Amino acid sequence: MSTVVKDVLAAHPADPGGVDRDRLARCVEECLACAQACTACADACLSEEMITELAKCVRTDADCADICAATAAVLSRRTGYDTGLTRAVLTACAAVCEACGAECASHAERHEHCRVCAEACRRCEQACNDLLTSLG
Amino acid sequence: MSTVVKDVLAAHPADPGGVDRDRLARCVEECLACAQACTACADACLSEEMITELAKCVRTDADCADICAATAAVLSRRTGYDTGLTRAVLTACAAVCEACGAECASHAERHEHCRVCAEACRRCEQACNDLLTSLG
Amino acid sequence: MSTVVKDVLAAHPADPGGVDRDRLARCVEECLACAQACTACADACLSEEMITELAKCVRTDADCADICAATAAVLSRRTGYDTGLTRAVLTACAAVCEACGAECASHAERHEHCRVCAEACRRCEQACNDLLTSLG
Amino acid sequence: MSTVVKDVLAAHPADPGGVDRDRLARCVEECLACAQACTACADACLSEEMITELAKCVRTDADCADICAATAAVLSRRTGYDTGLTRAVLTACAAVCEACGAECASHAERHEHCRVCAEACRRCEQACNDLLTSLG
Repeated sequence: MSTVVKDVLAAHPADPGGVDRDRLARCVEECLACAQACTACADACLSEEMITELAKCVRTDADCADICAATAAVLSRRTGYDTGLTRAVLTACAAVCEACGAECASHAERHEHCRVCAEACRRCEQACNDLLTSLG
Repeated sequence: MSTVVKDVLAAHPADPGGVDRDRLARCVEECLACAQACTACADACLSEEMITELAKCVRTDADCADICAATAAVLSRRTGYDTGLTRAVLTACAAVCEACGAECASHAERHEHCRVCAEACRRCEQACNDLLTSLG
Repeated sequence: MSTVVKDVLAAHPADPGGVDRDRLARCVEECLACAQACTACADACLSEEMITELAKCVRTDADCADICAATAAVLSRRTGYDTGLTRAVLTACAAVCEACGAECASHAERHEHCRVCAEACRRCEQACNDLLTSLG
Repeated sequence: MSTVVKDVLAAHPADPGGVDRDRLARCVEECLACAQACTACADACLSEEMITELAKCVRTDADCADICAATAAVLSRRTGYDTGLTRAVLTACAAVCEACGAECASHAERHEHCRVCAEACRRCEQACNDLLTSLG
């Protein structure tokens, strides 16, 4: 997976425009991993007995999955690069990962899928913030 | 279409939490319309002879479609409502609609699909900003 | 909404390739309406007291939303049109709409959002099948 | 990435229902990798000089990205598992990966991003077919 993301981004003919390719590839990977973890965690919550306590977790997971998937797609595009637009999307993604990570972390002791998902959110939030910082 | 969005949002058992339901429904509709218009415009650009001049338009259309679709989904969820997260997503959506609307508008005189799409972007940007304002 | 879908599809420079433009536009609209209704219904289920009985509904709604959104996007593209690919996607979309419509219909008497969503699924399934038939 | 997919799927409380968890996890990973590769390849094509010859590639990449992303999400859900629905989605995904892989392969000698993408499509198509076979 990691190889495909790096290989296809490295093969893009457009000038990277000052973007750190390693941070970019890592952020795309973390967004994809987080989107999938959130989708799977939301569904796993639906199979738990204490589903009522997990309702907000299902909802936040779904939001996080949608935003992370959109962010991975936007970051994968390098033609006609626009720093302002990249910033706006990364800022929203970091915000939703922070909210979802906190919600999942509050259930992590009882549900392994929430623990795995909280960790994926934390890594994605960090990768978004690292990329934001490097944009200058 | 408009009826389905309003009907299903009106049937949600959660407290609307101070959100103006009419502005919410309108924003969801505009996000869906804009996402579809951008997807169709990007593809229509690929069938134009002057495709090289439209490369940035295709790219921005694709970003706008992804963010608008994610925003429509986030706004359609009312369980465990979070104003901060809603703001972050609406801000990103308004930013990408502004960028895409400007790009499409620059081709509107020569390409009808760009004209229709620029108008959809403008309406979606306005709906996002109206909803942002009403969040207080 | 309806006007935007028709206008942007009508403005596409590619030859329609024997596809009935009215059925195509209607199918795109129904896919978008169904995707949104399913996303909203899944979330509304999470705010119901009898959430345990609705777990499968939430899951099926989420699948239906994802497939309908992808189908709307595929149908909105006319460049390099491929009948076989269009058939495969419409077949999957009709299948998931049938499954989701049946699940939602089983809760329609008690939950208005399930009733609205079941109707949106039924209309989308019909629009997919109508378009499939017209492809010859 | 691979670890997150396996870990979160392994933590799901629902009975796997006869589905081979390793093939499932591999298929989810290949769908995510293929979706990202197609999104990046479509955009890379827009930065090539011979963009006109790549118009169909951009379109097919976009379709493949949408269907692979939806398939990864559907496969990540295990609550209320439905074999028929899983079959329909995997069949559509294998079809679009085959079409996109063939289109990308025809440009692989001149464009490295098309070569990487063709390989991702081929692996995803294989993973979908392997999972389909194992469903019995």
